[in-house]
Amino acid sequence: MGRSIYTDLALESREMNPRIDGVEEINERDGEISITRIKITADEAAKKLDKQKGSYITLDAPELVNRPLDLFEAMSKCLCKEIKLMIPKLGENASIMITGLGNRMITPDSLGPRVAEQVYVTRHITEYMPDAMDHPLRSVCSVAPGVLGVTGVETSEIVRGIVEHVKPDLIIAIDSLAARRASRISTMIQLTDTGISPGSGVGNTRAGLTLESLGVPVMAIGVPLVVYASTVAQDTIELMADETGLHNDEERLKALAEKVISEHMGPMIMTPKDIDSMVGDMSRIIADGINLAIHDMNYDEVKALIA
Amino acid sequence: MGRSIYTDLALESREMNPRIDGVEEINERDGEISITRIKITADEAAKKLDKQKGSYITLDAPELVNRPLDLFEAMSKCLCKEIKLMIPKLGENASIMITGLGNRMITPDSLGPRVAEQVYVTRHITEYMPDAMDHPLRSVCSVAPGVLGVTGVETSEIVRGIVEHVKPDLIIAIDSLAARRASRISTMIQLTDTGISPGSGVGNTRAGLTLESLGVPVMAIGVPLVVYASTVAQDTIELMADETGLHNDEERLKALAEKVISEHMGPMIMTPKDIDSMVGDMSRIIADGINLAIHDMNYDEVKALIA
Amino acid sequence: MGRSIYTDLALESREMNPRIDGVEEINERDGEISITRIKITADEAAKKLDKQKGSYITLDAPELVNRPLDLFEAMSKCLCKEIKLMIPKLGENASIMITGLGNRMITPDSLGPRVAEQVYVTRHITEYMPDAMDHPLRSVCSVAPGVLGVTGVETSEIVRGIVEHVKPDLIIAIDSLAARRASRISTMIQLTDTGISPGSGVGNTRAGLTLESLGVPVMAIGVPLVVYASTVAQDTIELMADETGLHNDEERLKALAEKVISEHMGPMIMTPKDIDSMVGDMSRIIADGINLAIHDMNYDEVKALIA
Amino acid sequence: MGRSIYTDLALESREMNPRIDGVEEINERDGEISITRIKITADEAAKKLDKQKGSYITLDAPELVNRPLDLFEAMSKCLCKEIKLMIPKLGENASIMITGLGNRMITPDSLGPRVAEQVYVTRHITEYMPDAMDHPLRSVCSVAPGVLGVTGVETSEIVRGIVEHVKPDLIIAIDSLAARRASRISTMIQLTDTGISPGSGVGNTRAGLTLESLGVPVMAIGVPLVVYASTVAQDTIELMADETGLHNDEERLKALAEKVISEHMGPMIMTPKDIDSMVGDMSRIIADGINLAIHDMNYDEVKALIA
Repeated sequence: MGRSIYTDLALESREMNPRIDGVEEINERDGEISITRIKITADEAAKKLDKQKGSYITLDAPELVNRPLDLFEAMSKCLCKEIKLMIPKLGENASIMITGLGNRMITPDSLGPRVAEQVYVTRHITEYMPDAMDHPLRSVCSVAPGVLGVTGVETSEIVRGIVEHVKPDLIIAIDSLAARRASRISTMIQLTDTGISPGSGVGNTRAGLTLESLGVPVMAIGVPLVVYASTVAQDTIELMADETGLHNDEERLKALAEKVISEHMGPMIMTPKDIDSMVGDMSRIIADGINLAIHDMNYDEVKALIA
Repeated sequence: MGRSIYTDLALESREMNPRIDGVEEINERDGEISITRIKITADEAAKKLDKQKGSYITLDAPELVNRPLDLFEAMSKCLCKEIKLMIPKLGENASIMITGLGNRMITPDSLGPRVAEQVYVTRHITEYMPDAMDHPLRSVCSVAPGVLGVTGVETSEIVRGIVEHVKPDLIIAIDSLAARRASRISTMIQLTDTGISPGSGVGNTRAGLTLESLGVPVMAIGVPLVVYASTVAQDTIELMADETGLHNDEERLKALAEKVISEHMGPMIMTPKDIDSMVGDMSRIIADGINLAIHDMNYDEVKALIA
Repeated sequence: MGRSIYTDLALESREMNPRIDGVEEINERDGEISITRIKITADEAAKKLDKQKGSYITLDAPELVNRPLDLFEAMSKCLCKEIKLMIPKLGENASIMITGLGNRMITPDSLGPRVAEQVYVTRHITEYMPDAMDHPLRSVCSVAPGVLGVTGVETSEIVRGIVEHVKPDLIIAIDSLAARRASRISTMIQLTDTGISPGSGVGNTRAGLTLESLGVPVMAIGVPLVVYASTVAQDTIELMADETGLHNDEERLKALAEKVISEHMGPMIMTPKDIDSMVGDMSRIIADGINLAIHDMNYDEVKALIA
Repeated sequence: MGRSIYTDLALESREMNPRIDGVEEINERDGEISITRIKITADEAAKKLDKQKGSYITLDAPELVNRPLDLFEAMSKCLCKEIKLMIPKLGENASIMITGLGNRMITPDSLGPRVAEQVYVTRHITEYMPDAMDHPLRSVCSVAPGVLGVTGVETSEIVRGIVEHVKPDLIIAIDSLAARRASRISTMIQLTDTGISPGSGVGNTRAGLTLESLGVPVMAIGVPLVVYASTVAQDTIELMADETGLHNDEERLKALAEKVISEHMGPMIMTPKDIDSMVGDMSRIIADGINLAIHDMNYDEVKALIA
């Protein structure tokens, strides 16, 4: 039954399966931000957690919903640090391709395209007018390939086509994520070296973007921005089942779940009312973090450049 | 316990209380649109249904979510007919004030302001350049007073202030509504002669706009655009309770409900992923319907005028 | 002929009429910002400059177009200082009404409504839950009355209606302005104690908002965001006339101007391509400045509160 | 000097060079729409007109600015007819790639991306679930590659990368155009079989998209949405020169032009105030026209599908 409780967060998968082997977890703090490092090392664990083997870092700051500017800046800097730790040492001439996944016209799915817009691109300058830069910059480009339902082309096909021309040394993919708990919405950033898994993201329509499929290492950065209504129903039902010992009757529970979901929910998502501003905030935080990590500049330099 | 299942739709309140006196219900069809006329005649019934005494007409067309243009036009024309039936016979010189409630910057709450933008206003023409019109037009103005959290002023205060200057003969208020069932989102239009009740609307922050409070008759037109997550949880729990006979233990159910809601939901709303385009569609349908009803023109004349 | 060169900036009117009596001008610097204080003291001068008698302060920072964050903050703080100097000493219980003029749906005319959205309103808190505030706050409300073409009601009528209920001690009106020179677009903030003059603003459709018309002192804050195409043509023609001695033939020049304007321009406006982001920047700068000036808090406190 | 009078419209280039060989022009009417067919057959003419050899069809309807719905539909149907005439007979299984050029975040440059969003894509259906379609549909996909300044990658590189995977039989590129005359803004659609020329479009930053560069025939559809301020100045100055016989002094005219442009304009564009709604209208008209032309359906079927 757990299958129908969906989350893109390794941290939540781990919570649901606390006692399995092949998973390492480390917890740290950086001011108001709590950092969780989960490493999935065994195939068995990957299967149980429904996540690829690899590293998942979560930056968690519940205070973000109150929108204090200094915490925005702290998150950007913390994200910058983690990106630098995760990316293979990149040389001066390394080229990076930012890839914003999702649908710009659907608010909770627009994180990726919005970050892509705000990243400070340099590839055209480094290629066509290298002398224009006062200090050396890494070559960065940024694309938003769109979603299958709007383009008619698998995102992975479009990305592969661009990759073959741009030949980046690293891809950083940004995506909106689905969480299990509403309390996680817009309070977390997840960073992973496993790329984008097929079926992840808001709407579960993503094709995979991975080292295997693209031939380039793919770092993925995501923010939980929705909870599927079906997850809520499933959770509620299981909770009730615990309370009522109904677990004896799996069949009946399944039927109940289907009844609730079909009657009340269809393909609904749960978001806070002010999701519009939350996506705006998180896209700025992530764009700032990426700009800081890729170009060795201070916060205001970058803000000035990308604005 | 039903208290925490919230709906702005008289039709849904009625469904939850099918067998009470002081309520008349008539069902009709107009092509793909099913029309339900509910009249609450007794105070007792009004209390039970948590709705003001008066008439509530619902236009229901589940096919709307598939966005066929001809159904959009049919809904506009049907809404037009119902508005004409409901409004007291208005003279040539009658003046009407459209009032778009809600927050333009929060997608599911932006229906009112969007309709207000699209209504064909004539008051400035009829007042300052009556000769400019090729055929006589009723005097129509249109305002979007904003929401308390953004303006710091009760919507009703702002509306009253404008009313005292504009002195309209009728107010038509447009608002986003909360439904109990997700299947109702963006498939229905509710029309009522009772005005806006305090605490209704997305976010429940509305102050009342009624004949009593404003001294002008108020017709209200709304569309269900969200379901409160707490409603879903409550519904799910009650359903489980029915299945498990847990109803014997009211206390335990209450505790459960609170646990689920606080853990999973906070002040979440449930919407379809493509709520952005749905609000756009419904605002156009309602603006067209109002324009048709107020100015005696055909569809294309009005579309041309308001575009 | 100068009549058809239109500007809302007292500073530009002054430039065009440098040698007239009844005008005082003081120039200062505050870091990258140059401050110009123009005081029109004589009726004759007011008539010549086509501006009301009173004080006009211009904050000018051409670097703004490059969008450095630290300059944004410096502008907000400088604006804050000037607002504090200009407003009559307001008591603890003074109430202020922000009024955002213009059309939210027309990019270069949306400054006012955008500032109104971002101002930190407190009136509802100070009125209904005074204990909720950790430190005392002035009572602030914020409205966006819309434009005549969309509402059908004179903006001044709507504002008067609200004023009669809210009874503020001061109104701060925000508006998009038209400049003579493109180089001024989005690089200046004009502050005046004369309120809003009839016919000013983008589209020249504003009705006046002044102490005389509302019975409340009105401070106006504006940013030049467009140049009328007719202004450009007129300027060009006069320049050519200077060069060619054509000034002898007034009639011919008039004819030429009309030919150019009707053939090439109609009611066109000139803006930079990225006006969308410029309006976004300036609205944030002004909202921050107002919040700082009204509530005695530091920059981050306010940013956190209003975000 | 004419160099600095810029237009993307073959019709305007032709007006400026009426008496040259190697150009055929045919004029027709279709209701309110006047159709101009210009064919550039000689290299010399192409050089003089600064346009590629090939066919340019202009659909002109000044009434569009008044936004009558029936004219919108007429334009869509007329565009449909012209597309069908221009495209090589495409077989049942022909695949078409719509390419929306320009910057979605800059209003007058957002035509292409907006059309791309509204085109009815079928490639994913025809490829992955052919049985889902009730009647056979051509394979259509739709991409918005973004602009160099935002992505850091030449649009042509991105398009080439996608083309190599999608292997379309035809590309239809949509773009915002610059006109010489303000009266043309949002009243015309230009259709050409020459593809996109380097340096065309709003901002002149386009790289070429042609049969030569992509190996696929490219049809281009554009709408004039801006006039460059420099064009206005240049026009005005030449007009004055005609009037004053100043043409004797080329040098002095050049100097004047530069003075005017640098003093008044910078890189300004001229648009109507309500450009936002105009781009919305034209993108719908073009998307409808394309959908009608590619899929043999009637107007309402297509509207329903794409809505």
